[in-house]
Amino acid sequence: MTAANTTETNPSVELAGASLDVPETYPEIEVRVELETRSYDIIVRRHIIRNLGAEIVNNLGLPDGQGRTAAVLINPKVDHYYGQDIYNSLKDAGFTPLPIVLVAGECYKTLQTARRIYRTLYEKSVDRRTLIIAVGGGVIGDVAGFVAATYQRGLDFIQVPTTLLAQVDSSVGGKVGVNFEHGKNLIGAFYQPKLVLIDPSTLNSLPHRERRSGLAEIIKYGAIYDEGFYKNVDNDVIGLLRLTSTYLESAIARSCQIKAEVVAQDERENGLRAILNFGHSVGHALESLTGYHVYRHGEAIAVGMVSAALIGEELGITPPSVTSTLVDTLTKARFPIGLDERLYINDIVSLLSLDKKAIAGNVRFVLLNALGHATPGHEVPEEIVRAALQRQRGF
Amino acid sequence: MTAANTTETNPSVELAGASLDVPETYPEIEVRVELETRSYDIIVRRHIIRNLGAEIVNNLGLPDGQGRTAAVLINPKVDHYYGQDIYNSLKDAGFTPLPIVLVAGECYKTLQTARRIYRTLYEKSVDRRTLIIAVGGGVIGDVAGFVAATYQRGLDFIQVPTTLLAQVDSSVGGKVGVNFEHGKNLIGAFYQPKLVLIDPSTLNSLPHRERRSGLAEIIKYGAIYDEGFYKNVDNDVIGLLRLTSTYLESAIARSCQIKAEVVAQDERENGLRAILNFGHSVGHALESLTGYHVYRHGEAIAVGMVSAALIGEELGITPPSVTSTLVDTLTKARFPIGLDERLYINDIVSLLSLDKKAIAGNVRFVLLNALGHATPGHEVPEEIVRAALQRQRGF
Repeated sequence: MTAANTTETNPSVELAGASLDVPETYPEIEVRVELETRSYDIIVRRHIIRNLGAEIVNNLGLPDGQGRTAAVLINPKVDHYYGQDIYNSLKDAGFTPLPIVLVAGECYKTLQTARRIYRTLYEKSVDRRTLIIAVGGGVIGDVAGFVAATYQRGLDFIQVPTTLLAQVDSSVGGKVGVNFEHGKNLIGAFYQPKLVLIDPSTLNSLPHRERRSGLAEIIKYGAIYDEGFYKNVDNDVIGLLRLTSTYLESAIARSCQIKAEVVAQDERENGLRAILNFGHSVGHALESLTGYHVYRHGEAIAVGMVSAALIGEELGITPPSVTSTLVDTLTKARFPIGLDERLYINDIVSLLSLDKKAIAGNVRFVLLNALGHATPGHEVPEEIVRAALQRQRGF
Repeated sequence: MTAANTTETNPSVELAGASLDVPETYPEIEVRVELETRSYDIIVRRHIIRNLGAEIVNNLGLPDGQGRTAAVLINPKVDHYYGQDIYNSLKDAGFTPLPIVLVAGECYKTLQTARRIYRTLYEKSVDRRTLIIAVGGGVIGDVAGFVAATYQRGLDFIQVPTTLLAQVDSSVGGKVGVNFEHGKNLIGAFYQPKLVLIDPSTLNSLPHRERRSGLAEIIKYGAIYDEGFYKNVDNDVIGLLRLTSTYLESAIARSCQIKAEVVAQDERENGLRAILNFGHSVGHALESLTGYHVYRHGEAIAVGMVSAALIGEELGITPPSVTSTLVDTLTKARFPIGLDERLYINDIVSLLSLDKKAIAGNVRFVLLNALGHATPGHEVPEEIVRAALQRQRGF
């Protein structure tokens, strides 16, 4: 359903024994997300952010920016590092940049923030040709996407995710929205971007734990969908974490591609798409029990993937060798994998049965049948969950 | 693209010279709106509202209501007349009705109202299987549709329009939304209902001017798309206004069908769909200049249709006989057709060039080439508009 093409940009010029002083070259990988009339491209290339305006013009097939307003929703840190480059490049391409700096953080992912953006767009009298460009992590992308989906019944939306988690997760799937009261993403829509531009060099300014958080999702994609990819990631997991790996672009692109393939088969989340939640049932419970203050999302997912593997073992679905491979990879990357003594199994189990994916109180799990192959919808008896979590205490 | 079937429900049983005491029968007309995976049915039948629950179950192909929450967004007057029938019929069909009474009126079509509904849904912990049922006029339909489009990324949405205007206009097209600051429908989405149930008997409790407001749109559909339909409407225009016409169901159904056919060819409003705005350029200007307090929407559209016909005449596009037919029909139904002395042509012209459909200041009009045939996108020089409006002073 998707195709990845690797091309070289700015081909370097090599002369006998010497190289000319041309700009550094970076591999570019393109992933096409096929969703009929809503299909779009994801482009992965280091430093692509410096060239944002031209990339948008080229990819949307425009002659130039045509004076269109480009509302850039961005967080203060990203604005500090990349803002000027972004606004200049948009201006150079003929857009009219409109920076809207938003404080990042889950607690700002609200209707209030959306309303603040609506007001700015209204005061600037932007028209329907306006682009909404989200530059930042998942929160910025979700709020910006919701505004794009709902302002004037839909504006063109471009994602420029700058955290590893957003690059491999929230830039694919079309889920946009805000929290409401205690409901995560309770108000939202399915709305696809026109283009996603991923610049792995933005990860240099990301804290180590945030990068590891994204890495957990990359490992997950391999585990549920592609054994070969899993092994490639495992081979250079430390380099990926340190951003020194030459496989970084491929790891990001293939993750997007796997998510895109799964989503293309199930855009509105009825069946297969559930496999993307591998590790997320227990993971979400841990995040919730610790008030989102202890685990980064990916760290909680790492623990949850191990829980799911152990549950699969108990049921005879997951071979023990798969569990140990997963544990090895996660351990190399220094993820937590054991179940902390301070967390009560009773609390986890009762949160699991409240999960919106539970049907009539039966907890459903995504389980691994093999490395690279997951199946959704396994109803697991509570005692099996307890036994697996008990075993995980010792990890 | 659409098909209308006329069938009889509750066939009456006739015996020699006497009729048994069976329920009265009403013709039923069904219109299919073809929009690929988002296709849905519109059913027109008097007193269908008393049987709402069963109609929903049948039409959505459910075994029964399955305990699903049916959130009924309704205005106080409609609740007073039909609320108990509706809630009982939903209960009988196996749904769990959740009435949410909303004050009607354009000034309540806001994010605040949407937020109030979100909060009720949140407090009742409704799940993704919840139906949102809008019972009322255009405002209720627009707000309810926006909530349905955005709560949990989309709930099933059913429209039960109870004003003639909503029945023939806002129940087709998928436009949902709320006003923001001074922007009408500024926040919104395209979101299709699963089913539209139209009960012409609800029009009995509608003020005369409100019924006439809807009639203007019916006349418009004939004028822009179907000469035969126009003539049928013209033949019994007083009966339609008094609700005594046996053609009422057909007039509503054919109006929906025409709108559906146009929308199906242009769901996201790029070209043809603009013909639905016939009469709306000047009409909107009149509404705006009089603060929405003088003209009902359809009354302003009636004046605007005459303006557009006169502009078409000035350009040699609209035959004078078409204008006089239109004027005759509107006059029979006692619509205003002249341009009131208290309205300044300068004000109208300057509002027209601010219209969001104006491109770079050039006013675009939908014009009639013949009775039953309109074309969009005519750029009209300002002096032509002035000449036509000046002529309309004398009407």
